[in-house]
Amino acid sequence: MRRVGILGGMGPEATVLLMARVLAAVPARDDADHVPLIVDQNPQVPSRIRHLIDGTGADPGPVLAAMARRLVGAGAEALAMPCNTAHHYAGAIRAAVAVPLIDMVALSVTEAARQATRLASWRAAHADGVSQRVTGRIGILCSPAVRQVGLFDAAFAQAGLVAVYAADGEAMLAAIRSLKSRGANDDARAMLRAASARMLAEGAGVQMIACTEFSLIADALAPGVAGLDTLDQLVKGIVAFATEPVKA
Amino acid sequence: MRRVGILGGMGPEATVLLMARVLAAVPARDDADHVPLIVDQNPQVPSRIRHLIDGTGADPGPVLAAMARRLVGAGAEALAMPCNTAHHYAGAIRAAVAVPLIDMVALSVTEAARQATRLASWRAAHADGVSQRVTGRIGILCSPAVRQVGLFDAAFAQAGLVAVYAADGEAMLAAIRSLKSRGANDDARAMLRAASARMLAEGAGVQMIACTEFSLIADALAPGVAGLDTLDQLVKGIVAFATEPVKA
Repeated sequence: MRRVGILGGMGPEATVLLMARVLAAVPARDDADHVPLIVDQNPQVPSRIRHLIDGTGADPGPVLAAMARRLVGAGAEALAMPCNTAHHYAGAIRAAVAVPLIDMVALSVTEAARQATRLASWRAAHADGVSQRVTGRIGILCSPAVRQVGLFDAAFAQAGLVAVYAADGEAMLAAIRSLKSRGANDDARAMLRAASARMLAEGAGVQMIACTEFSLIADALAPGVAGLDTLDQLVKGIVAFATEPVKA
Repeated sequence: MRRVGILGGMGPEATVLLMARVLAAVPARDDADHVPLIVDQNPQVPSRIRHLIDGTGADPGPVLAAMARRLVGAGAEALAMPCNTAHHYAGAIRAAVAVPLIDMVALSVTEAARQATRLASWRAAHADGVSQRVTGRIGILCSPAVRQVGLFDAAFAQAGLVAVYAADGEAMLAAIRSLKSRGANDDARAMLRAASARMLAEGAGVQMIACTEFSLIADALAPGVAGLDTLDQLVKGIVAFATEPVKA
């Protein structure tokens, strides 16, 4: 099996959740059946939110590049990063190392497009008159930083999808901060559920959890939503890379 | 904060549990308050049980030494290993690197001695006639490999403690194997509880969870036991090292 390096600590609990989901994704009879990872659990990466939203903090790019080099030096044959916002700095990581970055954003958009198509087919089959109008509308539950830097814009445009964001970015940020300090909690759940319900009312029947802090409370999507968690797409990408037979 | 390298994957779920407990042990308002770790999640370390009990498998020592070197190369200033049995190979690790190994066995014996003293004081105060006879008897819930190699023997002798092991080593091994393949489960819990109850009847009022697979079901100690989990002692050691002010 091939070893995957994890640029972690953003936040540290999301990194632990990723590792737990990688374990759960592999049917194993003994330790050796599991995927080898080398994990840089680095909670001291400069805050992405402070850099992108507040415009005051240090640039996380050089720190992420250094982490990438360290992980490759320690044997990583590919890299993965369980933080959507940090994918804004993917260029700095790719420039620093020769191994591939398993791209959570790209994988998630592919899956969102697949689910949107499936939902449209289902609605057409059930003679739902609104299906055509709303087919391509995907809710993105994320940090306001993700919206601000347009992290999903290019991939959405290419896939013919339209992004629906939470109307109240401040509420999303408050939820993320509470998850970082308190872990999964019901205040954050209530905020996420309200945002999700509003997006659904705006025609986003498919919604993406696009902040790994929200992955801690992925159960809080509004009823009736076809949800996908970007963290799960990353898990699939990691397991596929690790277990794929190496070409001669 | 100082970065601690984790020799992980033995088993991989215990490594994830260690990371979750390190997070829980640190009061944090934001990511940056947490302890930096570099984790080699290596489920392909040769089986300790196969090497020590079956006498057939490869020696894990050289693999652990190589992991230690890789972790130090990636910036680890100390090492820790969330697997009791693997501490049998601590010598190979210490010989490979110049940084300290935070020793789960030593930390746990210190804590067991402290709890034994406290239990004896309590019993003396409550005029429990049997207190003197059973003071130093500590139950060790572990892999039969730990007993076979005498992992705790020297430290127990030095601390004046007497080890009480499970009568049925095969049952312990079966429980460990089921935890490795199925995760926390009630069959394993029932086995651990039976072993714990029998040890209590044999005078071991203080018992150590000394297999990180059993840490997944630490709730299964028999009622009335003063329990300590070796994994928790390692967590304390990691947090203390990481957060200790560096001497000039």
